[in-house]
Amino acid sequence: MQRIFNDADDIVDEMLKGFLKTHSDIVVKTDNPRVVRAVKAPVDRVGVVTGGGSGHKPAFIGYVGENLCDAVAVGEICSSPTAAAFLDAFKAADGGKGVACLYGNYSGDNMNVKMAVKMAKKAGLEVKTVVANDDVASAPKDQREKRRGVAGEVLMWKVGGAKAAKGATLDEVIAAAQKAIDNTRSVGIGLTPCTLPAVGHPNFEIKDGTMEVGIGHHGEPGIEVCALETAAQMAKRMVDVVVPDYPFVAGDEVVVLVSGLGATPIMELYVLYDEIDRLLTEKGIKTHRSYVGNYFTSLEMMGATLTMMKVDEELKELIDLPANSMGLKQF
Amino acid sequence: MQRIFNDADDIVDEMLKGFLKTHSDIVVKTDNPRVVRAVKAPVDRVGVVTGGGSGHKPAFIGYVGENLCDAVAVGEICSSPTAAAFLDAFKAADGGKGVACLYGNYSGDNMNVKMAVKMAKKAGLEVKTVVANDDVASAPKDQREKRRGVAGEVLMWKVGGAKAAKGATLDEVIAAAQKAIDNTRSVGIGLTPCTLPAVGHPNFEIKDGTMEVGIGHHGEPGIEVCALETAAQMAKRMVDVVVPDYPFVAGDEVVVLVSGLGATPIMELYVLYDEIDRLLTEKGIKTHRSYVGNYFTSLEMMGATLTMMKVDEELKELIDLPANSMGLKQF
Repeated sequence: MQRIFNDADDIVDEMLKGFLKTHSDIVVKTDNPRVVRAVKAPVDRVGVVTGGGSGHKPAFIGYVGENLCDAVAVGEICSSPTAAAFLDAFKAADGGKGVACLYGNYSGDNMNVKMAVKMAKKAGLEVKTVVANDDVASAPKDQREKRRGVAGEVLMWKVGGAKAAKGATLDEVIAAAQKAIDNTRSVGIGLTPCTLPAVGHPNFEIKDGTMEVGIGHHGEPGIEVCALETAAQMAKRMVDVVVPDYPFVAGDEVVVLVSGLGATPIMELYVLYDEIDRLLTEKGIKTHRSYVGNYFTSLEMMGATLTMMKVDEELKELIDLPANSMGLKQF
Repeated sequence: MQRIFNDADDIVDEMLKGFLKTHSDIVVKTDNPRVVRAVKAPVDRVGVVTGGGSGHKPAFIGYVGENLCDAVAVGEICSSPTAAAFLDAFKAADGGKGVACLYGNYSGDNMNVKMAVKMAKKAGLEVKTVVANDDVASAPKDQREKRRGVAGEVLMWKVGGAKAAKGATLDEVIAAAQKAIDNTRSVGIGLTPCTLPAVGHPNFEIKDGTMEVGIGHHGEPGIEVCALETAAQMAKRMVDVVVPDYPFVAGDEVVVLVSGLGATPIMELYVLYDEIDRLLTEKGIKTHRSYVGNYFTSLEMMGATLTMMKVDEELKELIDLPANSMGLKQF
């Protein structure tokens, strides 16, 4: 395992120290060492919170900042933050108008968020939630509630953060974030497994010369293992999963996000995006904006994800609002 | 080789197509398919150009943008752009006040830039150059002219681009960029080799459980191969190479850049940076600003580089100027 850390048990705390130093213009620490808040705390507006396991950088902490999330609960690697961390994140993001907790559909996160929401209610703080479930490959279409949240969460945070920044009510922020994720579909292709530093070896396998379509961000099994393909073939496979599921159709305007899973060279993501864009253009689907880069990763996994969100005028305006976080800087 | 591309011979052109689509707010193509220009061409000010081989993203193309480079010449993977591409980049960046070409010390780049500068002169365009040589491990201190340029180039572009944007003369831009690189020292530690898509297997070896100190961005041999260390030990090793070479001393203010080499998870770069910052603080060296992330990579190599630049008031002002490119967005 060729990696950079001291003690695998301390890696998250040590990462946080370095993160807080580097991005002191964007984030500050709080009394809870596993909660980080944006420098400008919300005042007289809705607060936006997220949280999740570590190892997915820039997610989750990299989306705390101006016009994005106001606070984040930080978990161990690939493991949910505690309910106490979510509760403290809610308190850190409380600007007097309630808190929107926008997170991904994983059992640990669901359980801890629910507990934290109850505790917040007792403390007089109203928290409403949106649960991202954009990963098409993780459950059939008629069981969307079982699908995992993946890179589509980035677009949900962008939309929810922008709506809150514009002074919307809690219900309006929740409605916009819910619309964002309802309009969003993703799929990933994994080319190599990843290794948790505390484990020291991959806990799943992707054989050289093969790829796993529909893989999750923690190596959850996909829908198909097949021979490694060209970028054009991978793009077609991804588009053929994502487009019919929503479905995106001719005339639709979309935001496209292509994220690397960690170790794939960025130049290859642009090669893949070029192929995806060609296929969408052929289908008469218009791209309003695209993001290509490492937006939601899985340690040093190789591979990429495709996320598409159908946008209307409201979503376009919210997506286009400037933002400033470690993971997303938009002028 | 678990990678995403179509034809290894077309990967740079296909990458460029995807890059230009995604970043159409920042860059535009030119008549030369291997030259990309910033959307806002320089008018009545010095133009700033760089160029180099591909596979180092965000370098080089990712540093074309507002208050950074105005045009870039794009080479094949790990191979210099042609003299014709550099010449066309000079022309693309010509705003009537001369062009500063800020590039790294590699034999192919040196040769092609020199030819292009001569051709530009014949065409009536004045081009002056700064050659980055920040890689401490690549030659002894008394042979700085033999040292390679590595991640310190990012700081040179930031400074040179900012100086040009502020309306300085060509000689002033060259002087600022030269000061930036003269004040800058870097070292890298490689943990895994990288694979050129056209080759299909690594062209050098780093054995599991070892690391190569002083490795170059193309796998050029370093100064020592030793057993894999903790982040704290790696940080000390890097600081012990970089700090005495300049030398950086108590009371100095510096900019610190920690870049991943491609596949190392971002969280680990923050762990490493936290250790580096602790060592610098102990030495009485004050960090004015830090950058941590993938700023200058080598395909899917694992490992990291440390770059330090001593800053005075002029360099601080230039470093702090906002910038907008794919690789560096600064508010």
